[in-house]
Amino acid sequence: MTRTLQSYVQDAWWSPADDTSGTEVRDAVSGEAVATVSSAGLDLAAAMDHARTVGQRGLGALTFHQRAVILKQLALALTERKQELYALSTRTGATKADSWVDIDGGIGVLFTYSGKGRRELPNAKVQLDGPVEPLSKDGTFLGRHIRTTLPGVVVQINAFNFPVWGALEKFAPAFLAGMPTIIKPATPGAYLAEQMVRIMLESGLLPEGSLQFVAGSVRDVFDHARLGDVVAFTGSASTADALRRHDAVQTGGVIFGAETDSINASVLGPDAVPGTPEFDAYVRQLVTEMTTKAGQKCTAIRRAIVPAEQADALVEAVRDRIATKVVVGDPREEGVTMGSLASVEQRDEVLRQVAKLVEGGGRIVLGEGQTPGEDTAFLSPILLRFDDPEAARVHDTEAFGPVSSVITYASPEQAAALVVRGGGSLVTSVASADPAFVAGLTRSVASANGRMLVLDRTDARSSTGHGSPLPNLVHGGPGRAGGGEELGGVRSVFHYMQRTAIQGSPEMLTAITGVWHAGASTRDDTHPFRKSLQDLRIGDRVVSEEREITLDDISHFAEFTGDTFYAHTDEEAAAANPFFPGRVAHGYLLLSFAAGLFVSPEPGPVLANYGLENLRFITPVSPGDRVRVALTAKQIIPRETDEYGEVHWDAVLTNQNDEIVATYDVLTLVSKTPELAAAE
Amino acid sequence: MTRTLQSYVQDAWWSPADDTSGTEVRDAVSGEAVATVSSAGLDLAAAMDHARTVGQRGLGALTFHQRAVILKQLALALTERKQELYALSTRTGATKADSWVDIDGGIGVLFTYSGKGRRELPNAKVQLDGPVEPLSKDGTFLGRHIRTTLPGVVVQINAFNFPVWGALEKFAPAFLAGMPTIIKPATPGAYLAEQMVRIMLESGLLPEGSLQFVAGSVRDVFDHARLGDVVAFTGSASTADALRRHDAVQTGGVIFGAETDSINASVLGPDAVPGTPEFDAYVRQLVTEMTTKAGQKCTAIRRAIVPAEQADALVEAVRDRIATKVVVGDPREEGVTMGSLASVEQRDEVLRQVAKLVEGGGRIVLGEGQTPGEDTAFLSPILLRFDDPEAARVHDTEAFGPVSSVITYASPEQAAALVVRGGGSLVTSVASADPAFVAGLTRSVASANGRMLVLDRTDARSSTGHGSPLPNLVHGGPGRAGGGEELGGVRSVFHYMQRTAIQGSPEMLTAITGVWHAGASTRDDTHPFRKSLQDLRIGDRVVSEEREITLDDISHFAEFTGDTFYAHTDEEAAAANPFFPGRVAHGYLLLSFAAGLFVSPEPGPVLANYGLENLRFITPVSPGDRVRVALTAKQIIPRETDEYGEVHWDAVLTNQNDEIVATYDVLTLVSKTPELAAAE
Repeated sequence: MTRTLQSYVQDAWWSPADDTSGTEVRDAVSGEAVATVSSAGLDLAAAMDHARTVGQRGLGALTFHQRAVILKQLALALTERKQELYALSTRTGATKADSWVDIDGGIGVLFTYSGKGRRELPNAKVQLDGPVEPLSKDGTFLGRHIRTTLPGVVVQINAFNFPVWGALEKFAPAFLAGMPTIIKPATPGAYLAEQMVRIMLESGLLPEGSLQFVAGSVRDVFDHARLGDVVAFTGSASTADALRRHDAVQTGGVIFGAETDSINASVLGPDAVPGTPEFDAYVRQLVTEMTTKAGQKCTAIRRAIVPAEQADALVEAVRDRIATKVVVGDPREEGVTMGSLASVEQRDEVLRQVAKLVEGGGRIVLGEGQTPGEDTAFLSPILLRFDDPEAARVHDTEAFGPVSSVITYASPEQAAALVVRGGGSLVTSVASADPAFVAGLTRSVASANGRMLVLDRTDARSSTGHGSPLPNLVHGGPGRAGGGEELGGVRSVFHYMQRTAIQGSPEMLTAITGVWHAGASTRDDTHPFRKSLQDLRIGDRVVSEEREITLDDISHFAEFTGDTFYAHTDEEAAAANPFFPGRVAHGYLLLSFAAGLFVSPEPGPVLANYGLENLRFITPVSPGDRVRVALTAKQIIPRETDEYGEVHWDAVLTNQNDEIVATYDVLTLVSKTPELAAAE
Repeated sequence: MTRTLQSYVQDAWWSPADDTSGTEVRDAVSGEAVATVSSAGLDLAAAMDHARTVGQRGLGALTFHQRAVILKQLALALTERKQELYALSTRTGATKADSWVDIDGGIGVLFTYSGKGRRELPNAKVQLDGPVEPLSKDGTFLGRHIRTTLPGVVVQINAFNFPVWGALEKFAPAFLAGMPTIIKPATPGAYLAEQMVRIMLESGLLPEGSLQFVAGSVRDVFDHARLGDVVAFTGSASTADALRRHDAVQTGGVIFGAETDSINASVLGPDAVPGTPEFDAYVRQLVTEMTTKAGQKCTAIRRAIVPAEQADALVEAVRDRIATKVVVGDPREEGVTMGSLASVEQRDEVLRQVAKLVEGGGRIVLGEGQTPGEDTAFLSPILLRFDDPEAARVHDTEAFGPVSSVITYASPEQAAALVVRGGGSLVTSVASADPAFVAGLTRSVASANGRMLVLDRTDARSSTGHGSPLPNLVHGGPGRAGGGEELGGVRSVFHYMQRTAIQGSPEMLTAITGVWHAGASTRDDTHPFRKSLQDLRIGDRVVSEEREITLDDISHFAEFTGDTFYAHTDEEAAAANPFFPGRVAHGYLLLSFAAGLFVSPEPGPVLANYGLENLRFITPVSPGDRVRVALTAKQIIPRETDEYGEVHWDAVLTNQNDEIVATYDVLTLVSKTPELAAAE
């Protein structure tokens, strides 16, 4: 008798009392039983509640950056033990290359989100969205948008094709957002997901309640879900449609995110005739998408949309490439390039869908779905051709395996229309070296796609491929593709947060956001450049002396820098310019003088000025004008893994009439303690 | 017999053949019949198709800025004829102040979106979301996110309370996004919406098919809706829930946006005791929200959540203020401050909900729902008090009129928990001068709200009020509030667009986006500063000569500007800094020299450098290093209403080893023609 997989709920491993009711999972290659899966008797409601209380508390104590650091450490922990995962992955029918996509790809998602989290989110718990919106003339009433963590739990319901990647690509953004996760893997391959979770938990890195795992059914999830929870589903469009109808989603405010297999298209451009690098790249990519993971990818190419005159050449080229490059077989054997489907049931399901495609007008032009044995899940690649590109079946029926169909177009408009017939896709690719064709097609079909990839001779080698979702790009798509955005850098983090407009006085917005807002209190004691992050507080400010800008200054700066633009050197020409009263100071002169005014020259906690943002010159400065600068600590971002952090300073340059001359943000690196600074 | 309202479909006014089946709309004040409403026989499918074809074509020919200019012109056209709208608005029971909110408020939305569209969107048809994502080491494969217009039609289904604002707040973002609209007003007040549409159409500003109007039912809208269409609903949560269940939404990919009335809360802080400005502001705001538009606002305060010890004082203060400030009556009469509900039916519905609140534990402590006559829709303000703050009814039952309930809390945690019991709200306000209380409450309840307002002594006078959605802030909310974002500046525009990740070579990304991407072709002929917008193209570039940076330059710059920071003046101290090899050039020195290197000094099309973005210093520059700068036209944004436009230049400063020293974007104003430039 096989081992029954364990679940991990309420911070403890759990096994079902009664093993006999479970589902048996078989090795996709050998047909042997691997494990039994059952969640009979598991208290899902309690697990969800544990996440909402203990899990939210643990994650809520951490900032975005602290969560991001844990993601990186988890990635390292998984990397260290990834051979355990590779060994199990082979049993799902995956080749070494397939396992790399699943396992290293999944780990890569953690690394990317760790980096993005630290670069693109503040080291805080609230995210600011967009600039300040002034709401009153006197500056006493402002608006600002913030994002805060949803208060519930994320329940993942995953597909069978990528047991590791599929879990981690949802876990990473949710974790970064501060939401606890319950992973529910598909039954085939659940043993691989279980081992991944075990490694993650054994790392000791995870806050209590932040990760739970249910091997088996979560059929009653919606009965326990409520406002603030997210159910994140990957799988077939039909299952997604059924789940979405639950009252918890329809009226209970539970967010249902779906990413479903879609009838993705790949278009061969009219210029990409045989012999061009684009034609070759198109063929290579098509074969890759048919055979990687035995075509069991939501992003695989289902429709090859090609110019009518190239269809025969294309079929021929695909046939050649498959004949010379593709070896179907046991992924453990040397030389095998394509493994099996995930299960015998899945193999039979694919053949049923192929039969539907044939019934709907498709002719099989390559492969006949050979299977070496009844008990194993192998299936060789199948290419169909539809004489009628408008046939409904080719646009609405998916065989989730090594199966693609060729249809032809007569005009760019028809190519675009055919792409859109898919009813919303995860990805469409186009191979062409003609920018006009590519731009036209893209603008016509982008709204039906979550991602588009353009193959040409420039990127044919560097392209990551039609079928590879990347953590920094949107993965998801409209309509049939589910309407979600599972990945996309911080974009997907924000799907686990609520955006809220906040209105109030500068003081209150400062208190709520932790970022200083103009008009809130300031503190003018010690020069803020003398304070390390230990002592520096937002609102700490230095207001400089005045400095007069002389005509000599301007002339000298022009000569010294070579910036002899007429507005600085020729009174008459400058006065004729619609924006200047006459000769004016260089903007860069003003910035440089401002730095001279606010600088604190001796070695100290401020280590470097690494950049500048949002510089706007508002009022020109004429010879004889006097300027001063006010510099206020606006945002403080200590780094988790360095002895310093970023400080953003609000800089306002004014003239002798208190008119604003320029505004900008100065970006500096500041040490955490006086000690590092004292490396002076 | 009254006039039957007309619809406007397929660019023509339309009247139903059979008037007798229509619904009669009565004057809310006098009870007289005003108009009949019927869409019997109207071909909604044809109207929607007209929008998708003719409407999309007309709007698709325009850029964001061109659409924004039309919005402003429409606002001016409505302003000019707003007395016609005021006259009709009075018949809905609205006071002058109520009409101002609806009519001037609606026009204000057009103005705001016109300004936002021109300031925050490019003068193009595609919007770029986020920075370039490098996808290959060699720079040949990049990612970028774009947004493109959804290809369908927006059908608005509006509430009865704001016939003008309710239509324009959805029309403006959809129009800016490039989507045609069909307005379907609520039957009460439809005559006002009809007149608004008439004025908009008579202005002659609207592209064909971009605006249609259906007076009467659009019951079959979902039968004709498909992927790419949006149904934007405002009204009761229960109607929204029923509509959302349609197959077109569940599986057809039709986007259903909902903004529903919610059980909004207003919290009185523990510090805001009687006698404080915050207590007074709270009372004023509560009475305003009960009486403006006779309390028929989705954003009105339904739950006054106050410290137990202040409840009596609060009720007393509200009673006093209503007694001295509120006069219910015919809005045409002098001195009247509160008009009627929208209809007799609505008045009776409110009284039914009040009875439910009483049944659920509420005691009426103010007002008894006096109505001066059976045939008119007047109702005086009603305040209830619940002894049990946890009573379900106060958190789930809404009387959509001049009705609020007082409940009490014993701790900040309980106050937050009570707010959240509303199940998702459009807005929560809090009156307090205690930043810690405000920040704590906000962080606890923000995720249950689309908007929050903090009242304190600073903004008590400048606040726009709890119940006023603003076009630049999110309007919408999670859960019971519908889950949408109808307003929020460009945020709501993006709900009418699809976000798509684009992967490809720099050349292809440039062709698709119209924005130059590093690695795409450049043109180094005439200095690009000599080209007006007529001639300038993205990719036009100048690569400067090299300039050596000497120790003298650095010393002189330090002395001249006063920026004597040790990294520029003290070799030993600089070398001890973790980021510098020794004395290095000032960042502002490099910027200034770069300007000297790329400048073209004589008068010409470049009028001014108005700012700078994204400056990062990458490699420090030591004495003896040589730098050069490459400046490439990256984005060109001609203005619609000026003789010049913005040009963003990509600036890259490199050293003698081709290492990147600094990168930034230079922002300039450039004239459209050589003629303006020749004002030199």
